[in-house]
Amino acid sequence: MTEIIFTEHDRLEIGADEYRLRRERVFQLLQDRQLDAICVFGPTRVAYLSGFFFSPTERPIALVLTAGGAVAALLPNLELSHFQQQGPQLDDSAVYPEYPGGGSGRHPMLFLRELLSRLGVLGKVIAADVDGYEHRWGYRGPALSAVLDQSVQADVALIDDLRMVKSAAEIALMTEACRWGDHAHRLMQDSIRVGSEELLISHGASLQATRDLLAELGGRYVPKAREGLPANAMFIRGSNTAHPHGLHEAGAVQARDVLVTGAYGVVGGYESELERTMIVGEPDDRFRRFFAAMLAAQQVGLEALRPGRSCAEVEAEVRGFIRDELGMDDLVRHHTGHAFGLEGHEHPFLDLDDHTVIEAGMVFSVEPGLYVPEFAGFRHSDTVVITPSGSERLSLYPRELDELVVPVA
Amino acid sequence: MTEIIFTEHDRLEIGADEYRLRRERVFQLLQDRQLDAICVFGPTRVAYLSGFFFSPTERPIALVLTAGGAVAALLPNLELSHFQQQGPQLDDSAVYPEYPGGGSGRHPMLFLRELLSRLGVLGKVIAADVDGYEHRWGYRGPALSAVLDQSVQADVALIDDLRMVKSAAEIALMTEACRWGDHAHRLMQDSIRVGSEELLISHGASLQATRDLLAELGGRYVPKAREGLPANAMFIRGSNTAHPHGLHEAGAVQARDVLVTGAYGVVGGYESELERTMIVGEPDDRFRRFFAAMLAAQQVGLEALRPGRSCAEVEAEVRGFIRDELGMDDLVRHHTGHAFGLEGHEHPFLDLDDHTVIEAGMVFSVEPGLYVPEFAGFRHSDTVVITPSGSERLSLYPRELDELVVPVA
Repeated sequence: MTEIIFTEHDRLEIGADEYRLRRERVFQLLQDRQLDAICVFGPTRVAYLSGFFFSPTERPIALVLTAGGAVAALLPNLELSHFQQQGPQLDDSAVYPEYPGGGSGRHPMLFLRELLSRLGVLGKVIAADVDGYEHRWGYRGPALSAVLDQSVQADVALIDDLRMVKSAAEIALMTEACRWGDHAHRLMQDSIRVGSEELLISHGASLQATRDLLAELGGRYVPKAREGLPANAMFIRGSNTAHPHGLHEAGAVQARDVLVTGAYGVVGGYESELERTMIVGEPDDRFRRFFAAMLAAQQVGLEALRPGRSCAEVEAEVRGFIRDELGMDDLVRHHTGHAFGLEGHEHPFLDLDDHTVIEAGMVFSVEPGLYVPEFAGFRHSDTVVITPSGSERLSLYPRELDELVVPVA
Repeated sequence: MTEIIFTEHDRLEIGADEYRLRRERVFQLLQDRQLDAICVFGPTRVAYLSGFFFSPTERPIALVLTAGGAVAALLPNLELSHFQQQGPQLDDSAVYPEYPGGGSGRHPMLFLRELLSRLGVLGKVIAADVDGYEHRWGYRGPALSAVLDQSVQADVALIDDLRMVKSAAEIALMTEACRWGDHAHRLMQDSIRVGSEELLISHGASLQATRDLLAELGGRYVPKAREGLPANAMFIRGSNTAHPHGLHEAGAVQARDVLVTGAYGVVGGYESELERTMIVGEPDDRFRRFFAAMLAAQQVGLEALRPGRSCAEVEAEVRGFIRDELGMDDLVRHHTGHAFGLEGHEHPFLDLDDHTVIEAGMVFSVEPGLYVPEFAGFRHSDTVVITPSGSERLSLYPRELDELVVPVA
């Protein structure tokens, strides 16, 4: 892969030019679809278009782009200086004192209405990702269409479809994130023992991996969140793994436990994904059989991914293999994978009902799972980028059973 | 406080009886308001009413309660066993194979429509917290009203108003959470040195506090999440503190840095809140002046809280003090506090435009902040429960300056 220069200081984040390019694609979209403006409320979409990463709360924030090329924002006073530090120059802004009103006697959405009026788009064709700020924490408020007293063309696809194909810089950040997810997983695997407490092992490894990341990357690493680590690993264990999304449980690792892990890095706001099925002590035949089946199904998925096919075709190939070759269709509880990037799951999905055509630059998880009730779950997941001719795995952690056995002393 | 027995095993979680009581209050509400059913989509609201805690994704989940007392749910196949493990017995359920369709050719919301039809409420008066599943991750889908082709009375207040006054068990969990937030903060404060990397100190302290929690509580602690620790502390530093919601920055603690911290526990799904303003090395007069002003403003807030007053009255008293006694109104960037519990911020807010009447059992943060541009932010936050006669601080961490100075060797 060609080396990507992110910014003049080579910090591992998207540069101002790429944010500008993203907004230009939206301006073009507005013109093509004869929309006069779009209000973007989703915090990840705001960050995608502006570089403004923030801690989402009950205080609504919106980025407004107009067909004429204006960039404006609705901001709480709390975040004004923060936006000025991170975001682009604004042509106009509406800064409200506080949610629900901070003494203004007016809901923040009324400030947005005024901003749209000043921008000259009120009464014209207004689009949005969603019809108003969604109900995060204690937020209560009206739909945008109700505040404007006009129809709003609300569709998350307007922005999210632009996010499907990743740029070279995005793929480079996700590649780097994979490196740290892999590293956290390695540290975690190496520290699991019979008697280990899952929370402590997971977070101990995450902390050490983060220490290593900071030591190596130094100022090139730029945090984009208020909480969380840039390198993370966790696992669930035993029969809890039979729930695809089992929560943490208190308690110690036992001999013969099946473990299903999850590890990821976060670099420049972009995530990676890595999951492995492991066993504590010598695997028996039953475990070996399901593990081999899962691994074979994942291999089918990895080989099925290439540009020009639809998500549904890939999923059909994997599900056909599980049904016809493995005879285990009844053990499937979810589809083969999902796109991701700034968020842990993004559109599109490797699902029988998702007919999106796969393109080079898309990034998917590949993770067909088999869940045996009362026994265990079996799932590997890898981060895979679509190349012009096929796909390439960016998470490089070992996948074979003999490398995923926790020895029992 | 009287001792609360949570469950027969004295696990630190809300017991089945209290969940049943919550649903009974909703049944009563439906009857009082002549609503035939309510669809609850918000993941925290689903957990509040069912005890089913899960990792929210693009796969919609809804809990349906009818005026006739039926309990039903829309669930992805992925979470079925998980719901059966944690949630109540259901009178009916709609389990869809996968989002967006998993080969069914049908959007999950169509399964919900069928469920409502089977429950006999289609075409009747249907309420919801929000009009459809909100757009988490890659989710795309229609409003509930569009799927049902009828109007839906969507109002988050229907459920969230029930969450405002905490039960004895909820307050006991938050009291326990405070203990662990305080402990994490103590460990963090004691380990901050000039040259410390903020991410490593924060997470090192969080990990040690979690180790201590697990050692002391053992099986009484029941995780309710897939990620995160039950005891957490973090801080931001330097001029970054002048942003009320500054993100993490890479880099080392410097002598003369102002630190603004945040620490919390999570027990049984309930959070605490604790924030402190600290200084590295001997404070100068400028720092002392703003610190004393902030502390005095917080004291006004703590003393102003009592049942029967409105949120706005409390805020007016704090803002009046900051304006008239301190002459620092221009340094205010947010209101004095917010309710919380299962979520980090909940309705209502200690805000000039929130006229909710305060009741015993409500829990608020009290955190008036002063932000001096280019210099630093000054903010303490505490967890405060409203008592029959006033309020009581549940976070017991020292508030005075001499206890919040990091020594420089």
